[in-house]
Amino acid sequence: MIKEIKDGILYFDGCSTLKLADKYGTPLYVVSENEISSRCKEIRESFLDKYENTKAVYASKAFLPLAMCKIIEREGLGLDVVSGGELYTAIKAEFPVEKIEFNGNNKSLDELKMAVDYGIGRIIVDNINELDLLEQVCQEHNKKTRILFRITPGVKSNTHKYITTGTKDSKFGIPLNEEIIYPAVDKAIKSEYLEFAGFHFHVGSQLHDNKSHLAALETSLALMKYTKQKYNYSITDINIGGGYGIKYTQKDKPKSLSYFMDPVMNRIEEFCKENDIKRPQVIIEPGRWIIGEAGMTLYTVGSIKEIPSIRTYVSVDGGMTDNIRPALYQAEYDAVIANKALKPKTQNVTICGKCCETGDVIIRDIDIPDVESGDILAVLSTGAYGYSMSNNYNKNVIPGVVLVKDGKDQVIVKRQTYEDMIRNEVIPEI
Amino acid sequence: MIKEIKDGILYFDGCSTLKLADKYGTPLYVVSENEISSRCKEIRESFLDKYENTKAVYASKAFLPLAMCKIIEREGLGLDVVSGGELYTAIKAEFPVEKIEFNGNNKSLDELKMAVDYGIGRIIVDNINELDLLEQVCQEHNKKTRILFRITPGVKSNTHKYITTGTKDSKFGIPLNEEIIYPAVDKAIKSEYLEFAGFHFHVGSQLHDNKSHLAALETSLALMKYTKQKYNYSITDINIGGGYGIKYTQKDKPKSLSYFMDPVMNRIEEFCKENDIKRPQVIIEPGRWIIGEAGMTLYTVGSIKEIPSIRTYVSVDGGMTDNIRPALYQAEYDAVIANKALKPKTQNVTICGKCCETGDVIIRDIDIPDVESGDILAVLSTGAYGYSMSNNYNKNVIPGVVLVKDGKDQVIVKRQTYEDMIRNEVIPEI
Repeated sequence: MIKEIKDGILYFDGCSTLKLADKYGTPLYVVSENEISSRCKEIRESFLDKYENTKAVYASKAFLPLAMCKIIEREGLGLDVVSGGELYTAIKAEFPVEKIEFNGNNKSLDELKMAVDYGIGRIIVDNINELDLLEQVCQEHNKKTRILFRITPGVKSNTHKYITTGTKDSKFGIPLNEEIIYPAVDKAIKSEYLEFAGFHFHVGSQLHDNKSHLAALETSLALMKYTKQKYNYSITDINIGGGYGIKYTQKDKPKSLSYFMDPVMNRIEEFCKENDIKRPQVIIEPGRWIIGEAGMTLYTVGSIKEIPSIRTYVSVDGGMTDNIRPALYQAEYDAVIANKALKPKTQNVTICGKCCETGDVIIRDIDIPDVESGDILAVLSTGAYGYSMSNNYNKNVIPGVVLVKDGKDQVIVKRQTYEDMIRNEVIPEI
Repeated sequence: MIKEIKDGILYFDGCSTLKLADKYGTPLYVVSENEISSRCKEIRESFLDKYENTKAVYASKAFLPLAMCKIIEREGLGLDVVSGGELYTAIKAEFPVEKIEFNGNNKSLDELKMAVDYGIGRIIVDNINELDLLEQVCQEHNKKTRILFRITPGVKSNTHKYITTGTKDSKFGIPLNEEIIYPAVDKAIKSEYLEFAGFHFHVGSQLHDNKSHLAALETSLALMKYTKQKYNYSITDINIGGGYGIKYTQKDKPKSLSYFMDPVMNRIEEFCKENDIKRPQVIIEPGRWIIGEAGMTLYTVGSIKEIPSIRTYVSVDGGMTDNIRPALYQAEYDAVIANKALKPKTQNVTICGKCCETGDVIIRDIDIPDVESGDILAVLSTGAYGYSMSNNYNKNVIPGVVLVKDGKDQVIVKRQTYEDMIRNEVIPEI
């Protein structure tokens, strides 16, 4: 068990969370290496090893310190990056460049040059401007680059509107209007500098239902067929993105990866057979699904404010600076008092952060045991989009990240210092 | 004129925004020193010089690089900090400690020690836990500290729910239940280590109506009277917070500072006269009001995507990493194409950022001239909560900040580098 309770204390991957809080201070991000490995194992067993000609790339934006690149490499996955900064991090961690793909709705000229220069595996072209820009960059570098087209499949997912990305009205992807997508395909196939690999879509995030993926898949299949019929060109890749939901609270009933991938693979196999097309490689982009439940955040409880007949506010020493998702998406989390993990839940409270901001609430209305100043609170499933969206609002420092495995702990991101925060600030003549 | 158009080009405090974009690259925060000074002048003329025994402290959380401390000091204002990090910044900028006050709902023991150690002017005590903790710290340091109580006035403001802070159901302030506030006052007055100065409230942000301040003021006045009658103790301070609205878009009709302060001051004078109480010092905490309109963000336009019959998305090279307010509060902004500032507005588009996130939209449905890749877009009134809430999501770097004045420009925050971003990331044995 990755999370377990011994003598009433919460342990994570063999480490006492109380000892971690004591050793490193709070707030602190803790990441379980065994949980990451077990997710990657499930990807191998229920997708990569089960189906030939498949690939999984980790969506870096969820969490990408240098150490994560190393873990992902060891687990045999590729990397999906979305900026020059993520690419830089991957390169610094000596990640194999051919296993990197580059997503994003507005890659800059510098970013495209960087990607072509390093010779990364695939660029997911998001729009026509980028297609032109990239061809020009490849020509200048005299290098051929493998590309996919990100398309907008026009599928609405059942999730928070900010994390729905597949609808027609989206900043992402090439619209499926014939006068837009067909000339793009024509250009890509005929280009001397681009190797056209196929189509990519992403339907949304934190999904517990496979309908969106299956619906969106039909558009890629239709385009594959069109490309075959019109140009006798066989695409080599279909990338169906990520979005597989995880468990944040008891309300979430996440499905297995097989639940998502088996019907997708069956449908692709069937379609290819029917249309006499060689089945392309199928690529997935899990991010949150790999790292989300592998992380937790430890806080120390500070002030406790009981407003008679209204609510009790329990303040912790972090907040929207280390986890902005509740304020941004009304995201919900579960939490455990690490030093009272078996105590009965006696009260309902709201957990808030220390920022000067009313929206700085981490969990609204949670049942917990009697809580006191000095208790250690573990907020669960914060591995994805916690550290990666962290910020210095109120000039609070960004917590460190500790990697735990089988009872051992090591720092993978050092806690920021006050000095770090003002490093780039200079006093001119005023 | 701080913002003006010459030869169709947008100038800010005498500087061509095109030249700034060219010299420093984009995205870029630009801050006008003359606009800050003119705001501070209005504060002096319509509040500090007009009424005796008044004080204004700048709410640092809006924007606090080192250089801002220097400007605020020169303008004769104090500083309101809300964390050890902001206090550290003020100290590094050699800001006079007696002019610093410390707000926040969950100050840590270390932060309180730091504040007492430096001997800052005032600590705004937010809750009973903090009162006890602070008294203990003062005793250990054998230092007396001046305090105010932040109270929750139970006033609802007409603003976004996240930036309403005065309602009863708030993480901020001491509830006004007699069994809570009265013992606290008793303790503060009798304490050997605390100098009880009075009451503080904050009703909300970005207000265009003075009713909330006036309604909340009554609770402070009533408490002042109670304190006088019960203890014959005259409080020396009433702090009415900030929240004075600025102009983001044409929809905002901001009022003058006089509109807010004259009725407040009249009411306090009247109440004190009626009750034969010496009028306490009145303190305000403007933040956004000083820096909001003094800032703008320059972006370069990248991909432009027209989705037939739906919408045109114009992507820029920044986004929610440098301005998270649209995603967080559905905040609205206005923008100008800096190189086409006088061109007729021919189309309606949505301006989005480059983050892999559907919510990364800066302005929805804005009328602008024909826009092309390479245009420089100036998003206005981004001085407050832009840089201060910036983050490295998607590993995008945080833009630099340039201070402009009378046609001269100088860097006050250097643009972050990729190297800066991974400085604290270490690769352990994996």
